[in-house]
Amino acid sequence: MGKNLLIAHGGAPTAVINASLYGAVEEAKKSGKVDHVYGAIFGSAGILSGHFVDLTAVSEPELQLLLTTPGSAIGTSRTQLEKPEYEKMVQVLLEHDIHYVLFTGGNGSMDTCGKLKAACLEAGTDICVCGIPKTIDNDISVIDHAPGYGSAAYFQAQCVAEIAQDVRSLPIHVVIIEAMGRNAGWITAASALARENCGDAPDIICLPEVPFDEEKFLAKVKEVHERKGGVVVVASEYLHKADGSAVAPPLYEEGRARYDGDLGSFLAKLVISRLGIKARSEKPGIWGRASIQSQSPVDREEAIRMGALACKAVLEGKSGYMAGMIRSSTSPYEVEDVLVPIEEVMLTERTMPREFISEDGLDVTQAFCDWCRPLIGAEIPKFADFKGVFDPKGVKLH
Amino acid sequence: MGKNLLIAHGGAPTAVINASLYGAVEEAKKSGKVDHVYGAIFGSAGILSGHFVDLTAVSEPELQLLLTTPGSAIGTSRTQLEKPEYEKMVQVLLEHDIHYVLFTGGNGSMDTCGKLKAACLEAGTDICVCGIPKTIDNDISVIDHAPGYGSAAYFQAQCVAEIAQDVRSLPIHVVIIEAMGRNAGWITAASALARENCGDAPDIICLPEVPFDEEKFLAKVKEVHERKGGVVVVASEYLHKADGSAVAPPLYEEGRARYDGDLGSFLAKLVISRLGIKARSEKPGIWGRASIQSQSPVDREEAIRMGALACKAVLEGKSGYMAGMIRSSTSPYEVEDVLVPIEEVMLTERTMPREFISEDGLDVTQAFCDWCRPLIGAEIPKFADFKGVFDPKGVKLH
Repeated sequence: MGKNLLIAHGGAPTAVINASLYGAVEEAKKSGKVDHVYGAIFGSAGILSGHFVDLTAVSEPELQLLLTTPGSAIGTSRTQLEKPEYEKMVQVLLEHDIHYVLFTGGNGSMDTCGKLKAACLEAGTDICVCGIPKTIDNDISVIDHAPGYGSAAYFQAQCVAEIAQDVRSLPIHVVIIEAMGRNAGWITAASALARENCGDAPDIICLPEVPFDEEKFLAKVKEVHERKGGVVVVASEYLHKADGSAVAPPLYEEGRARYDGDLGSFLAKLVISRLGIKARSEKPGIWGRASIQSQSPVDREEAIRMGALACKAVLEGKSGYMAGMIRSSTSPYEVEDVLVPIEEVMLTERTMPREFISEDGLDVTQAFCDWCRPLIGAEIPKFADFKGVFDPKGVKLH
Repeated sequence: MGKNLLIAHGGAPTAVINASLYGAVEEAKKSGKVDHVYGAIFGSAGILSGHFVDLTAVSEPELQLLLTTPGSAIGTSRTQLEKPEYEKMVQVLLEHDIHYVLFTGGNGSMDTCGKLKAACLEAGTDICVCGIPKTIDNDISVIDHAPGYGSAAYFQAQCVAEIAQDVRSLPIHVVIIEAMGRNAGWITAASALARENCGDAPDIICLPEVPFDEEKFLAKVKEVHERKGGVVVVASEYLHKADGSAVAPPLYEEGRARYDGDLGSFLAKLVISRLGIKARSEKPGIWGRASIQSQSPVDREEAIRMGALACKAVLEGKSGYMAGMIRSSTSPYEVEDVLVPIEEVMLTERTMPREFISEDGLDVTQAFCDWCRPLIGAEIPKFADFKGVFDPKGVKLH
């Protein structure tokens, strides 16, 4: 006896990171090959210190709560590790009879995963290490999309559809909605799915893949404002200018400490001061990765499956792979589950391709919407839309 | 024939303003006393210009969509009216055979409502005018609470519970969540209901009723950070200092144009610069009044009932009242539906009473939670919480 499996989470949580945990635990239990399934408490730190929670001892109803629990139920961390720490980790794994390790995370965690696999080999052990993809930003390369993105996209589309309906009925201002996603515009882009509801908002979509052109942006805001009154802008948190500098000045900068500025707030001020139009900004922020109300059922299902797939891989003696999905068809939506050599995804970053961005750079294309649509897995609910009420030729007050 | 009823919306929408519209339309149709039920397009402006939508012509399934439609389905406005405009309104009402008028709104709209009633009397007409309460801020006096608040409170509690779970699992920063509510802390206070879930967040609640004390605030942030790592602060958008000045400097100020600053962003910067702790801010903003996902079923039911009650009142020849609810019992939750003379609620404002605010001014009391709880009408879903994982004495990484 004594073949144990360890699962660790790395990086920021998503709405379905715990669903992958569930999928992995269930697969391990089902296999009959694993004595204990441990969760490393607070990621790599938990591995280094040997702080584990025994997930095999958790009751089934409690485990099922994982499917609808945001955050990471076993904690997570963002620590960067040095080589001696990987060697230390291998020792801890050996001490606890851990033969299988799963890392759930994004580019950074896959880097950790790959390095731990190498350290295990170097130490002459047969410990198998595989990765489970997870990121709301959807910036892991090779695969079609990562679990976590579908829910973040659904959250974004819901948020924009509902705010847009508010703006439509009280068209007195420009509303800037700041979206997450770091250097990748996938989440921001998902706002376009709000158009499945009534209205045509968002009116402007600013992606980090497109250098921010202040004059072009303001000209479009002005044009939409004159035509419709209310304007809904969705802007990615880390927009930059053509020279590579950040659009929003940092919130704080002193020595090495630097905190990014509020992009939405910055753009609102820009609209007010340059165009004299009332503007405000909204920033659901990290709620976008923690909302269970906006959890995509497709995303949840895929997260469970990726957890199970990676677990199955290590139990079969495979090491150095990340579970993933490659799309074989968009309509009907079909993906093929694959194992990607971990070296192909370590620390790489995938941003939006040109064909998903509109020609003027301030919107997405239908191709993007078609690609994104199946991932949110739910309807954007329809709203009442009485003919003529919001007709721009009718009464307009602003 | 030809006795028509007109409904107009004033001020910002809520998640249930359209539910009140539904309640009023259904009541009018059921009564058999009304020929056409009109909706004034974009509030007072629609009355002045005679732009109406005939709600009697809308199909029942379409009307039912009102129950789950954010924004105002007939538009709304924030215009302040002058006396001649009220006289003009009366003329328009007479021209369209409108015998009954309902205004849905907050303090300002109730003021409009009262003045229109006076203008109708002055003109020697028997047009009846009544109000339907609506505000997310919950600052209408006399009544226990207004439709719109319960859903905003539910949204707030959900948002804080989910973000808190994220912070708990990655306790590396102070998160400031900015809440709406203008000068009243009711929405901010509802964050405390997030504690029904696991964890004890929010850690700090800053209400506009309590002058902001920077040193006291920072001391509490520091204390919680040392104890737990992650800190969840909820702060009301318009906090002010003891001298009455705004805590956050205005976003823009030039001549008469003034736009309020971002309180959350300001507090995050304060924490970073004064304590050297990583901090960020989130601001769901106007989404908090437009989310159908967080619509409280109790709120929706009450909104329908208030719409119906006001409608019944005008049809019975009553004029100059606002429909309202007075609480008769909190456990079990019971309210009595009443008609409040409109003069008692015109432009008054109700903030949080002292007994709902904790002694140190940085939290709410159990009495507030007991009062607020029935209004959200839904469970805050439970999350998985494995014993020992988030034990502050265990591994902690920050």
